[in-house]
Amino acid sequence: MAIEGRFELGDFELQSGDVLKDAFLSYEFHGDLNADRSNAILYPTWYAGTHETNRPAIAEGRALDPSKYCIIVPDMFCNGLSSSPSNTPPPHDRARFPLVTPYDNVIAQHRLCTEVFDLERIAMVAGFSMSAQQAFHWAVMYPEMVAGIAPICGTAKTSPHNWLFLEGVKLALQTDAAWVGGEYEEPPKEGLRAFSTVYSGWAMSQTFYREGLYRTAAGQQFDTLQSFLDFMTGFFSQMDANDLLGMVTTWQAADISDNPKFDGDLEAALRSIRCPAIVMPCDTDLYFPPEDNRIEVAQMPESELRIIPSVYGHIAGLPGFAPPEDDAFIDQGLRDLLLRAGS
Amino acid sequence: MAIEGRFELGDFELQSGDVLKDAFLSYEFHGDLNADRSNAILYPTWYAGTHETNRPAIAEGRALDPSKYCIIVPDMFCNGLSSSPSNTPPPHDRARFPLVTPYDNVIAQHRLCTEVFDLERIAMVAGFSMSAQQAFHWAVMYPEMVAGIAPICGTAKTSPHNWLFLEGVKLALQTDAAWVGGEYEEPPKEGLRAFSTVYSGWAMSQTFYREGLYRTAAGQQFDTLQSFLDFMTGFFSQMDANDLLGMVTTWQAADISDNPKFDGDLEAALRSIRCPAIVMPCDTDLYFPPEDNRIEVAQMPESELRIIPSVYGHIAGLPGFAPPEDDAFIDQGLRDLLLRAGS
Repeated sequence: MAIEGRFELGDFELQSGDVLKDAFLSYEFHGDLNADRSNAILYPTWYAGTHETNRPAIAEGRALDPSKYCIIVPDMFCNGLSSSPSNTPPPHDRARFPLVTPYDNVIAQHRLCTEVFDLERIAMVAGFSMSAQQAFHWAVMYPEMVAGIAPICGTAKTSPHNWLFLEGVKLALQTDAAWVGGEYEEPPKEGLRAFSTVYSGWAMSQTFYREGLYRTAAGQQFDTLQSFLDFMTGFFSQMDANDLLGMVTTWQAADISDNPKFDGDLEAALRSIRCPAIVMPCDTDLYFPPEDNRIEVAQMPESELRIIPSVYGHIAGLPGFAPPEDDAFIDQGLRDLLLRAGS
Repeated sequence: MAIEGRFELGDFELQSGDVLKDAFLSYEFHGDLNADRSNAILYPTWYAGTHETNRPAIAEGRALDPSKYCIIVPDMFCNGLSSSPSNTPPPHDRARFPLVTPYDNVIAQHRLCTEVFDLERIAMVAGFSMSAQQAFHWAVMYPEMVAGIAPICGTAKTSPHNWLFLEGVKLALQTDAAWVGGEYEEPPKEGLRAFSTVYSGWAMSQTFYREGLYRTAAGQQFDTLQSFLDFMTGFFSQMDANDLLGMVTTWQAADISDNPKFDGDLEAALRSIRCPAIVMPCDTDLYFPPEDNRIEVAQMPESELRIIPSVYGHIAGLPGFAPPEDDAFIDQGLRDLLLRAGS
């Protein structure tokens, strides 16, 4: 049984120096901690996701098995459930919400893990996309606590091209006058449509579209490409526009070396990751291409690069959207990593 | 010496049935026709390009050598020089400009070639990107006239993913309220910035950005990625917004089989291409990926797939932007094709 919770962080100082007043993390956990609290898995949320979005990957018989592990899913800042532009009072409401980095997210998650769950050790930090970026940050920031990481379709630092893809979707949304610099009363519908349409070109591969796999995507039926794009617009439009933009800035800022310990030295930060890691990019991912991970893994002594052979592109790693064979490939990677990490 | 010209088409019936009144083609040609008019090369323009943009590839010592060939460069409709939204009077002005397909462009170009240049045979139709799509159309529509084609970074039919990339940049521009459904008096600046930023993520590869190749792109110096993006915005903003959108709709409609002769049977249309062809996609092109050409070439009896090994992505085929080694690779392909085609 899954239990949802809310963890009060109080006045939370961010990496930027800004203080987010009365900050909080929403979270959910599945399964029970064992007696020595050695079976915790951390599985953070990704872009435009919430702890509900993570659920399809968590089930008995899957790698993330709540009958064996206590799987903790902290909601990322800006996702609408943890502190976000849409739920924070002035002066940090709407577009005035400060930059929150993956570093900030992981500090808050660390407090959740230690203060609420009393953890000293985490069996695995696993994650997809921005959640993979958080897994990398965990390994760098709390090496004594993390037994292993499994980043899926995500990098330790956002690449220039990935940054540019995000800059594009951001501007596509903000160009809508109805966004009003974040002061909208009604959602900026046309901006959200432009955002979602551009995003859809990046999230799935050329082959996904060529082969018409969108027709049966997400367990639904789409007769036309346009009807699939309408679905994607509906999906993103469930989220608040300023929240979507807040998560974009978090993503654009992702960099395990952007902290006083490493001072921008990415190679040193990667070399500091001594725990076992299985890094799983997808062959056809357009914004987290395997090459970015290959370069990173070359610096990580205990790591393995294991490329998901899928035509789904980035969303090969997205539970509930990826085909069963991609889920199975990833589950095998997670099981192997847990074994390697000693769980 | 290059000579510019203007060819009056009169009232020009389009594939859609619409009639474009007083239509015209702008063009330029380099070099002289020989006595038997056997040395003509057709080299149409591409997206956001004009005959001036084609010039860097045309020079003595290059494959497109005006001392040997008469190289005719017809301006594509909607490029601001041939009939376009920006230069057409009501009722076809601005966003009311009708859909012009590659098929329509090639019919107009055929009239130019026969009525102005009195050609019975064209030694080669070569082209980059949308211009490559026109080369494919030439081979299908006028097989008796075309000795060979060399499509560079372009396909016979726009793929679903390519269509989606274009839909994204289109919406990014149109979302700007300053576009006013095409009725702007001042250019929609923010829409053009969003358009250009999204476009820039697609036009060059992930590796192009990872390796910082934008810093010396287009023979200029850019200290930051943002300054390069500003350059790209400036580049696209030279063009009229409705013209940019008109060329997008042409591109989205590209399909050699969308005509009465083939009635949507793409394989039959590809099989009908009996002239020699050297098809040159770039290894890292994100919207005309090699796989699309591989599928096409498998149906074309006299064709060769020759992949440009470049990290520049789509713009590996863009004269004046691609590095010298990509220019040289393409020139070799053009020379080989000319030889194979009997010139």
